Amino acid sequence: MEIEYLREILEGVKNGSVEVDDALTELKKLPFEDLGFAKVDQHRNIRNGYPEVIYCQGKTVEQVKKIVERLMEKNNNIMATRADIKCFEAIKEITDDAVYYEEARIVVVKKRDISKVSKMIAVITAGTADIPVAEEAAVTCETMGNRVERVYDVGVAGIHRLFARLDVIREANVLVVVAGMEGALASVVSGLVEKPVIAVPTSVGYGANFGGLSALLTMLNSCATGIGVVNIDNGFGAGFLASMINKL
Amino acid sequence: MEIEYLREILEGVKNGSVEVDDALTELKKLPFEDLGFAKVDQHRNIRNGYPEVIYCQGKTVEQVKKIVERLMEKNNNIMATRADIKCFEAIKEITDDAVYYEEARIVVVKKRDISKVSKMIAVITAGTADIPVAEEAAVTCETMGNRVERVYDVGVAGIHRLFARLDVIREANVLVVVAGMEGALASVVSGLVEKPVIAVPTSVGYGANFGGLSALLTMLNSCATGIGVVNIDNGFGAGFLASMINKL
Amino acid sequence: MEIEYLREILEGVKNGSVEVDDALTELKKLPFEDLGFAKVDQHRNIRNGYPEVIYCQGKTVEQVKKIVERLMEKNNNIMATRADIKCFEAIKEITDDAVYYEEARIVVVKKRDISKVSKMIAVITAGTADIPVAEEAAVTCETMGNRVERVYDVGVAGIHRLFARLDVIREANVLVVVAGMEGALASVVSGLVEKPVIAVPTSVGYGANFGGLSALLTMLNSCATGIGVVNIDNGFGAGFLASMINKL
Amino acid sequence: MEIEYLREILEGVKNGSVEVDDALTELKKLPFEDLGFAKVDQHRNIRNGYPEVIYCQGKTVEQVKKIVERLMEKNNNIMATRADIKCFEAIKEITDDAVYYEEARIVVVKKRDISKVSKMIAVITAGTADIPVAEEAAVTCETMGNRVERVYDVGVAGIHRLFARLDVIREANVLVVVAGMEGALASVVSGLVEKPVIAVPTSVGYGANFGGLSALLTMLNSCATGIGVVNIDNGFGAGFLASMINKL
Amino acid sequence: MEIEYLREILEGVKNGSVEVDDALTELKKLPFEDLGFAKVDQHRNIRNGYPEVIYCQGKTVEQVKKIVERLMEKNNNIMATRADIKCFEAIKEITDDAVYYEEARIVVVKKRDISKVSKMIAVITAGTADIPVAEEAAVTCETMGNRVERVYDVGVAGIHRLFARLDVIREANVLVVVAGMEGALASVVSGLVEKPVIAVPTSVGYGANFGGLSALLTMLNSCATGIGVVNIDNGFGAGFLASMINKL
Amino acid sequence: MEIEYLREILEGVKNGSVEVDDALTELKKLPFEDLGFAKVDQHRNIRNGYPEVIYCQGKTVEQVKKIVERLMEKNNNIMATRADIKCFEAIKEITDDAVYYEEARIVVVKKRDISKVSKMIAVITAGTADIPVAEEAAVTCETMGNRVERVYDVGVAGIHRLFARLDVIREANVLVVVAGMEGALASVVSGLVEKPVIAVPTSVGYGANFGGLSALLTMLNSCATGIGVVNIDNGFGAGFLASMINKL
Amino acid sequence: MEIEYLREILEGVKNGSVEVDDALTELKKLPFEDLGFAKVDQHRNIRNGYPEVIYCQGKTVEQVKKIVERLMEKNNNIMATRADIKCFEAIKEITDDAVYYEEARIVVVKKRDISKVSKMIAVITAGTADIPVAEEAAVTCETMGNRVERVYDVGVAGIHRLFARLDVIREANVLVVVAGMEGALASVVSGLVEKPVIAVPTSVGYGANFGGLSALLTMLNSCATGIGVVNIDNGFGAGFLASMINKL
Amino acid sequence: MEIEYLREILEGVKNGSVEVDDALTELKKLPFEDLGFAKVDQHRNIRNGYPEVIYCQGKTVEQVKKIVERLMEKNNNIMATRADIKCFEAIKEITDDAVYYEEARIVVVKKRDISKVSKMIAVITAGTADIPVAEEAAVTCETMGNRVERVYDVGVAGIHRLFARLDVIREANVLVVVAGMEGALASVVSGLVEKPVIAVPTSVGYGANFGGLSALLTMLNSCATGIGVVNIDNGFGAGFLASMINKL
Repeated sequence: MEIEYLREILEGVKNGSVEVDDALTELKKLPFEDLGFAKVDQHRNIRNGYPEVIYCQGKTVEQVKKIVERLMEKNNNIMATRADIKCFEAIKEITDDAVYYEEARIVVVKKRDISKVSKMIAVITAGTADIPVAEEAAVTCETMGNRVERVYDVGVAGIHRLFARLDVIREANVLVVVAGMEGALASVVSGLVEKPVIAVPTSVGYGANFGGLSALLTMLNSCATGIGVVNIDNGFGAGFLASMINKL
Repeated sequence: MEIEYLREILEGVKNGSVEVDDALTELKKLPFEDLGFAKVDQHRNIRNGYPEVIYCQGKTVEQVKKIVERLMEKNNNIMATRADIKCFEAIKEITDDAVYYEEARIVVVKKRDISKVSKMIAVITAGTADIPVAEEAAVTCETMGNRVERVYDVGVAGIHRLFARLDVIREANVLVVVAGMEGALASVVSGLVEKPVIAVPTSVGYGANFGGLSALLTMLNSCATGIGVVNIDNGFGAGFLASMINKL
Repeated sequence: MEIEYLREILEGVKNGSVEVDDALTELKKLPFEDLGFAKVDQHRNIRNGYPEVIYCQGKTVEQVKKIVERLMEKNNNIMATRADIKCFEAIKEITDDAVYYEEARIVVVKKRDISKVSKMIAVITAGTADIPVAEEAAVTCETMGNRVERVYDVGVAGIHRLFARLDVIREANVLVVVAGMEGALASVVSGLVEKPVIAVPTSVGYGANFGGLSALLTMLNSCATGIGVVNIDNGFGAGFLASMINKL
Repeated sequence: MEIEYLREILEGVKNGSVEVDDALTELKKLPFEDLGFAKVDQHRNIRNGYPEVIYCQGKTVEQVKKIVERLMEKNNNIMATRADIKCFEAIKEITDDAVYYEEARIVVVKKRDISKVSKMIAVITAGTADIPVAEEAAVTCETMGNRVERVYDVGVAGIHRLFARLDVIREANVLVVVAGMEGALASVVSGLVEKPVIAVPTSVGYGANFGGLSALLTMLNSCATGIGVVNIDNGFGAGFLASMINKL
Repeated sequence: MEIEYLREILEGVKNGSVEVDDALTELKKLPFEDLGFAKVDQHRNIRNGYPEVIYCQGKTVEQVKKIVERLMEKNNNIMATRADIKCFEAIKEITDDAVYYEEARIVVVKKRDISKVSKMIAVITAGTADIPVAEEAAVTCETMGNRVERVYDVGVAGIHRLFARLDVIREANVLVVVAGMEGALASVVSGLVEKPVIAVPTSVGYGANFGGLSALLTMLNSCATGIGVVNIDNGFGAGFLASMINKL
Repeated sequence: MEIEYLREILEGVKNGSVEVDDALTELKKLPFEDLGFAKVDQHRNIRNGYPEVIYCQGKTVEQVKKIVERLMEKNNNIMATRADIKCFEAIKEITDDAVYYEEARIVVVKKRDISKVSKMIAVITAGTADIPVAEEAAVTCETMGNRVERVYDVGVAGIHRLFARLDVIREANVLVVVAGMEGALASVVSGLVEKPVIAVPTSVGYGANFGGLSALLTMLNSCATGIGVVNIDNGFGAGFLASMINKL
Repeated sequence: MEIEYLREILEGVKNGSVEVDDALTELKKLPFEDLGFAKVDQHRNIRNGYPEVIYCQGKTVEQVKKIVERLMEKNNNIMATRADIKCFEAIKEITDDAVYYEEARIVVVKKRDISKVSKMIAVITAGTADIPVAEEAAVTCETMGNRVERVYDVGVAGIHRLFARLDVIREANVLVVVAGMEGALASVVSGLVEKPVIAVPTSVGYGANFGGLSALLTMLNSCATGIGVVNIDNGFGAGFLASMINKL
Repeated sequence: MEIEYLREILEGVKNGSVEVDDALTELKKLPFEDLGFAKVDQHRNIRNGYPEVIYCQGKTVEQVKKIVERLMEKNNNIMATRADIKCFEAIKEITDDAVYYEEARIVVVKKRDISKVSKMIAVITAGTADIPVAEEAAVTCETMGNRVERVYDVGVAGIHRLFARLDVIREANVLVVVAGMEGALASVVSGLVEKPVIAVPTSVGYGANFGGLSALLTMLNSCATGIGVVNIDNGFGAGFLASMINKL
């Protein structure tokens, strides 16, 4: 699939250093190894300079541990999201480098330094209950080498609180807006800046919130331009996308 | 059902001026007359000082005309909502007093003066496409004797436009906020005032707007306090409720 | 944002008593203080004469305690909603003035008297299971200085029970109607009075109730005029809005 | 499938008057004939004394005409529902006995008399826009030999109108309640009588009515006992069920 | 509200045996007593010959107990639905007459005999998991004096099992069909009989069943005529309606 | 992507008959040609022996015509689905071999013979309104060389009609069941055979049918085993899948 | 219902060896026995060569045990799905032949050998969290005598992993694709093969996944042809259908 | 609201060149002008270098024309989206510079040159029916000075077509993926690149597509990282966001 790599193999076949059968075999074998229940993509980190990411929810502690052990061999940075304290303790048994960001529910194993991005990402929340999702985004951004400013609890019902932080908001290169309930904050923020806004609806709320549907629809229907929406409560996805944009 | 009226009849029965059978008959016959397809409540206007209201949608022009003719006998003010130009023309044939508010789709037949309320109702919209629903609310308020200020096209994506009208917004005694798409305006306005806000979601928008569901959920889930929500596109209902509150 | 306040500062700048930079700084710093996880708005109580409100759900007892401690310094009345017994006990440790309304799940800390409103708010429920939400509304109204009459368990399936309380219902200046299941009570009550009705759908019911959606849609689609709807189970919001209207 | 009929055939097989192969063939061939696009069940009318019913929507005028022609041979009464004027004219070409109930959108071809049921079915509507669906129910009941009383436009927002007809409502043996918008009428009516109520939600309304969903959920979640619900706008189904119950 | 009763009072007023004020007071006081949290309707049993019904879900054991104690004074039969074993034990403390139908989750307190209805109600389920809801319907019917036949586990995927019970199904005067998953049984049964079918969707199933929505929609959209639908899992409502019809 | 083809090219590279750059270019260029607005996959027909398929809905007549012209060069059979009469006429201009199946809305251009499959596919409908979707499935099957038996209008409300065709149903190797409204037919049919059933929900119905959602959920939740469901009204997809299975 | 069996009985009736009444009785009694809560269909295994299947969810361990005991008498293979460890232990008490597939949550009791199918079924998952559902499908296929290849964790976000297994995928006769979240894998796989694909949406995911609705809609709307969809998380149903197809 | 501007005014107040009242007035008046029905924000273009944007849907041709005339005075570039041919003709009357992109439904009035961005944006569609939405995105990007490559009709059901364009896809700096039906393309594309993907669900499809909901949910639930989603059919929003990112 990799055009460059394919050329390399074709050259080998041409000059006789690679057998045709080996060429075919190599193409299929190389990009990953079989771990039984999960195929760890060893080449990813090299490809994009990002940490390996493990989504812990729905995996047993044993499965998480095995994947981490495997990844450790490659000297990659590792990020385990939606990790509870048990996941962290299991990873801690393997490596002392594991750090636990409790509110963000993220374990980071840092094996090599990442070059910092000078431009700033602002992570903004409407309420205090949105903070765990925001922290997931913020820690993701920081682990990927971005500078983050947190602007929390500035929901639209008391809009003067938002304006009091206007300087930070306008300095940001990319903005992550995290909001539950009516989720109106993304529209207001986007109207104040000319930078991309990644909107994260949260399931914070009750009743006609319908598990985050309310905030999700609000963000998708925003009359403001320049907003991209991710899944409900998907702080990691927002942080990852914001980081990707910030590094362009 | 009317306690006072019931007492009056009971007194009549007691002093023999009213027969028992007549008492029973009277109770059932009085509050309305049978018109065949629609029972016009003649007592309503006297009870609440409001105009008679006809919801034209789903009624034929002939039906509307018959109801208006009937109501004309009572010398009430009449308000026909969701009325198209044909409804207006049909009513015009009956009375020269009919006035058509085209954008609001309302016909008003004014038969007597209404005492004015000095306090102001602000009718606010997020976009220009919300104006027809807002006009339905505004004309309803005005027909019921309220002073109305219109603050149109001040959606949250350009929030400086809203702030430029802050004086009007803060002067209002009751506020009607009309918004489609993400419907965030109600939350922002409610956070700026200490007065009741009647929120009207509109079906303006497309895609994940789902016919106004998006704005409806936003308004119901508002983190701001002091908001009451009416049905999608229900400008009349919002104007009626705002008027009712303004007259307390 | 406060026009009057802005003028005051401008005057200071003009007469040299306020530096330009200080003016800018002051504007941004004044309206709230940073508490780390939640920004408490100290000016609110002064602005609207209402108690400070803390929504406890989704906050830890420690977070609630910290916010209350902070607010205590300002001598405001405080109302903590969706508070369980642990929240109450934590607040009790700070102040002996804390009172717990168990059914309403509200803690009130009264620090100063509120002028009473003579007009009455009726809080009405369809069934007994709707009472906790109704109590949240009623206690909210009472804490804000309103007189409240409770009319409970008068659902439309036995409409004679509703009529037996017609005197109270018709005396009310504002009505809060709390109903789950089919939520039809709001329409019937609204048809009996000429006063604003705040309708609260509850999640009481099962099956095709879909967590309160049934009652919510009923209330939004009411053929009666003069109804404003709040979120499912949002007794506090209804009480707050009713109080706001009653005080106009 | 018919136990009695099966016995008859078995007896024939036993006494040699019926061949085994014929028995098998007969069983499969008898209950209907093949018409190509629609298999008309000739035995139904005999079985239950009801008219043959053709649901015209989604069928071409030609298809309707062919089915009617076929049914004419059997001397059954015929009822074509959701029939527009073109359907009627096509049927009129076949038989002079065709009568068109325009508001109910039903064509009736009466070929034999039906014994009348003395007990009455009340058909009740909340608004005037619900009348076409109510007429579909009423004409269905009448065609099946029931006495029908119409109580129209007595929605819960003006509940005195309903009470004025209490005598008719309480005389009914079965009640069909037709309501759109919030659909609350079924609960109120059911609370006033001890007779079965067939509730028909209609798609009358707009916005959060969602094509009748609102009224449907209201009726399903009714706190009143003794209500059976049919599909949105299904006047025929309600009339048929009410008639079936009235004839027990 | 009761026309006859109203006449009686009017006569009393006329002949001077009843004071006007007393007449007014009496009208409001008589039909029920105030119990604080629940108003018990003492007249209901006399009106319809049915037991008093308490819906236990969402009520505390103490509340249930108090209501039962109150009702005991009136010598009515009592039926407590959705009652767990603790409810039963609490009622048992009051009266030895309490009987617990565990699968149906119903407590019956029998205080007087009910005349039996000779006609039979068939209660039919698609699967074994639907049986608790079916038992709620069956016990309700039996407590109200009906003869019940149970036809369980005859879902449409093995339709020969249904046909094997055709004799019972065809003997029934009213049928209650209880089905979850795809809920197709109601249509098939209704096609086999000419009697009213009360269809109860259940929440049995998983995935795209969406808590019973699947079966509910199936039953509402049935192409068979003569089906009335009740709420998801509402066995009591189906039994009550079936009984009401069976007693006509 | 094609392993065999890749080997062929590698061999060419090895023996010098193919340049490395040409090998890379060839790989990317070969499998399709660029048509501007639509890329026609020329290799498909050879790969699977099926006709080329054009989905006409949402394409202009001009676009359809261009694609057909292009495909004509390859001597493939062509099938245009959701084709109205204008599409047919446009194709007819290009080739006299075009045949229009009006009810199925399919145009077939037959350019070469297809070997027939001896095993039969039964296409079954619940009602007459489902026939267009069923015809789309049936014509698709026939065009792909399958023998088809049509069993139409045998819905579950008159289940004896279904049983009368049991011989055909049990002879089938694969069954396509097409049903709208409550969609129960798939479950019943699947319970009668031990062959794969492809279920097609249709949008036939009204009210709580919600555009076919009702039948879709019924089919997905079937308690019968051996049913695979396709999209609402997707007769072509069902026919294609049935054909694919029948040819295994 | 069984035509052949019916003939046999008819012959018996004809030659006098079977009484008419016995014939009727026999027809109704034979196909199953009454077990009280569940009617076990003893003839199924003989009819289709498949194991008896018990769906354990919603049944008590005692109920499961009783059904298994009953089935044991018939020497059929037995498969208990959605069985937890307690179900297994209860079955183990009856027979030593019980084997527990923990991840698949299936207990198999093998009583006789099944002839193997040489063609292979590929069971493919998008992620590791989809594996339990996939195992339910795979074990179902294997128990029914099919050869299964597992291709796990090859979701579309890393499509090279899928291509690395292209040889297995293209060798398969039938494919079961199991995917949660966006469920896109089914479309991609179906585009790579010319074999039937059975798609199983899973409830794996969060937020706007809505319990599997997201993957379900994706699979139903696939632009690829040749996909049949089963219910969310219905691994057994997919395995059963795939097996049925593979055995044709 | 503009900090810098506020400082400027404060300085004026300080040095006496600006009166306090004028300062207040100025702040409110400056940022826009009142046009009656729509407030045109004259400062926007200067702020962000982007064209003025008019969303034509829901506006009359007259309204569009007036807004354009007004904007013309400012020498801004203008972009009118969702513009039909009549909108274009109306704008053409005002200025010869108007160019109509028919497929994109966009009118562009170019008044000044925009500096080009060297990095490329790829706009990719799954099918041909998605092209109008894609063109809206592409023309938006181009009007804002970006280089665009179009990769159309490369949906996942024929994934080799996507791979044939891998060079373009991998060269892009930002990618806009437009897909209806199952919307799986965004996940696959995102897995092939390390650049931000803006996903646009379209309403292309039928049945369980539910107006684009299917593709929307797919994109929100993508297992791939780096995807931001916009509203259904919102090509303009996607193009605007992609452009914003590309210009960082």
